[in-house]
Amino acid sequence: MIAGVDIGGTTTKIGLVQDGKVLVQTRIPTTGHADDNAFADAIAAEVARLSSNNQQPTTGIGIGAPNANQHTGIIEMAPNLPWKHDVPLARMVQDRLGITTVLGNDANAAALGEWKYGAGKGYKDLLIVTLGTGVGSGFIVNGQLVLGSHGNAGELGHMTLVIDGRQCTCGRKGCVETYVSIRGMRQTYLEMNGSAEVLKRDGVLPIAEAARAGDVVALNTFERTVEWLAVALANAVTVTGPQRIVLFGGIARNGDLLMAPLRDAFQRALLNIYMGRVDLTVSALPDDDAAILGAAALTEA
Amino acid sequence: MIAGVDIGGTTTKIGLVQDGKVLVQTRIPTTGHADDNAFADAIAAEVARLSSNNQQPTTGIGIGAPNANQHTGIIEMAPNLPWKHDVPLARMVQDRLGITTVLGNDANAAALGEWKYGAGKGYKDLLIVTLGTGVGSGFIVNGQLVLGSHGNAGELGHMTLVIDGRQCTCGRKGCVETYVSIRGMRQTYLEMNGSAEVLKRDGVLPIAEAARAGDVVALNTFERTVEWLAVALANAVTVTGPQRIVLFGGIARNGDLLMAPLRDAFQRALLNIYMGRVDLTVSALPDDDAAILGAAALTEA
Repeated sequence: MIAGVDIGGTTTKIGLVQDGKVLVQTRIPTTGHADDNAFADAIAAEVARLSSNNQQPTTGIGIGAPNANQHTGIIEMAPNLPWKHDVPLARMVQDRLGITTVLGNDANAAALGEWKYGAGKGYKDLLIVTLGTGVGSGFIVNGQLVLGSHGNAGELGHMTLVIDGRQCTCGRKGCVETYVSIRGMRQTYLEMNGSAEVLKRDGVLPIAEAARAGDVVALNTFERTVEWLAVALANAVTVTGPQRIVLFGGIARNGDLLMAPLRDAFQRALLNIYMGRVDLTVSALPDDDAAILGAAALTEA
Repeated sequence: MIAGVDIGGTTTKIGLVQDGKVLVQTRIPTTGHADDNAFADAIAAEVARLSSNNQQPTTGIGIGAPNANQHTGIIEMAPNLPWKHDVPLARMVQDRLGITTVLGNDANAAALGEWKYGAGKGYKDLLIVTLGTGVGSGFIVNGQLVLGSHGNAGELGHMTLVIDGRQCTCGRKGCVETYVSIRGMRQTYLEMNGSAEVLKRDGVLPIAEAARAGDVVALNTFERTVEWLAVALANAVTVTGPQRIVLFGGIARNGDLLMAPLRDAFQRALLNIYMGRVDLTVSALPDDDAAILGAAALTEA
C-alpha cells in the first residue's frame, strides 16, 4: 500500500494506491496553514488516518508538487505555492510518520503514472506533456524517467518557442507555456479580440464551447494553439526520439478542436526521419485518480 | 584494438584505437566509388591493411556517419553522401571482415568520444553539440547515450528555433542549424550585407578574421550567432538538464568571439532553476583524432 499525495496550488489530494488503483482518497486545502510545518502535519495526519482504516500497512509515500526536486526532496521556491522558501517536504513528512517518502515534480509524477498505469504503459521512450495552467513534461528515455543532473529536467513548458515572444511568469520571454497552456490560450483569444463575455468564465472550456458554437475567434485560437503545440512537440522529439507522446490535462480532452488537427500538424512539423514514427494520444487515466497514482509511482522510480 | 571509421561528405578517416588513443590513421575518399559495395570494399581493405601491420587483432569496428541509425546499422537516405538509398553499412563491413561492426550517427560518435576520452569524461548527464556545416548533437542521460525509440534521437540542429524562419536543407523552416552552423553564420553575414570578398573563402574562418580586423558586420554576425546559440542550448537544457555542455567543431574554437560572450548569453537564456548549474566548454580532443576516437567508442556504447 502506497500513499500518493498531489499538491496543487489550492488543493492537495491524498490517496492510498494498490496495484495501480486508488482505493480511497481525500483532499485538504494547500493554503491557509500557519506555515510549512503545519502543512506537513496536515499531510501526515491524513495519511495516518487513511492508513489506520486499512488492513495493510502503508509502506511508502510519494508526493508530487510543483518545483519539486526529486534528487533533494525539496520544493524549490515555488511561485504558485504559499511558501516562497525551500521546503524539504520529503524529509518533513518522513520524520512525522517514519515511512519512506519520495518527493517529485508534479509533471514527472503525471509522467510516471501514465507510464506505469496509463497510455504510456510498456513504452521505453515516451513523452508525457501536461497542458494545464502552465505546461509540464516528463521524459522517459530507455525505460528511465529523465531527472537530469540536478533533478529538475523535463521543463518543456519553458523551452523558448518564440524568441522575444510573450512574457512568461518565469521572467523570460516566449516560453512554450505562454502559448499552449490554459493561460496561453486565453491570451491568444484576448489578443485576437475575442468576446469579453467568454473570458468571464475561467479555463479553456468557455473558449471550446464558443468555438463549437461557431465563434470564429475561438476557432482561430484553437488553430493557432495547434500550430504552436505541434512545433513544441516536434522540438521535444528531436532530443529524445520517443515512440509515443501522451497529452494530459483538460485542453487535450478537446478531441475535435485540438487532437484531430494536432495529429496532422504534428506530422508536418516533424523532421522527416521521425515522420510516422511517433504517435500522439491522450491520457488514459481517470482524471480524479491520475495525480494520486502518479505521485504514488514516484516511490517506484 | 578497435577500428574507428568516420565517414564525411568528401573524406573517410580510418584509424586504430587502443586505450583512448589513435595509434595509426589513414584516409580514403568518400566519393568516386562505383557503388556502396565498392565503398564497403574500400573500408574493409583499409581496416585489414592497418590491422595486418599491428601485433594485436582488431576486435571491433565502429563507424560514424551522417544519417546513420544505430539500431539498424543503416545509413538512411543521407542527403550529403553519394548514395541516396538506405545503405546497411554495418552488415556490409562485418560480412567482409568477420569483425563485429557498429554503425552510429556521426554526432553521437563525437558525443561518445568526448564523453569517454574528452571534456565530458565522468559526466552522467552531458550534451555534446557539433557546430559544423550543420549542427549535430549527442545527449548523455544518466550515463547512457540517448538513441530514442528508432535510433535517431539527438537532432538539436533540427529543432525549430524560429517559426517560419530560414529555409533548411531538411525541407522545414527555422531549424537551429540554419542559424548557428557554418552555413548559418555565412548566411547571417550575407544578409547583413557583409563583404563579398570575405565570403569568397569557405568556412567561418574568414568571418572570424574579418571580425578581428574590425569588420562591424562580421562582429555583428558573431553577436547574433551567440544569441541564437544561447537560446538553442538553453532549450536543450530544459529537456535533459545536463551538468555540462561541450561544443565541438571549428566555430567553437573562437574563444574570444564566440565562447566568452556565449557563456554570459547562455546563463541569461537559462530558466532560473538551471542557472549556474550547467557549464559550457569546448572539446578537449585533438581535432585529427576526435572523429576516429568517437567512432571507435560506438563499439562500447
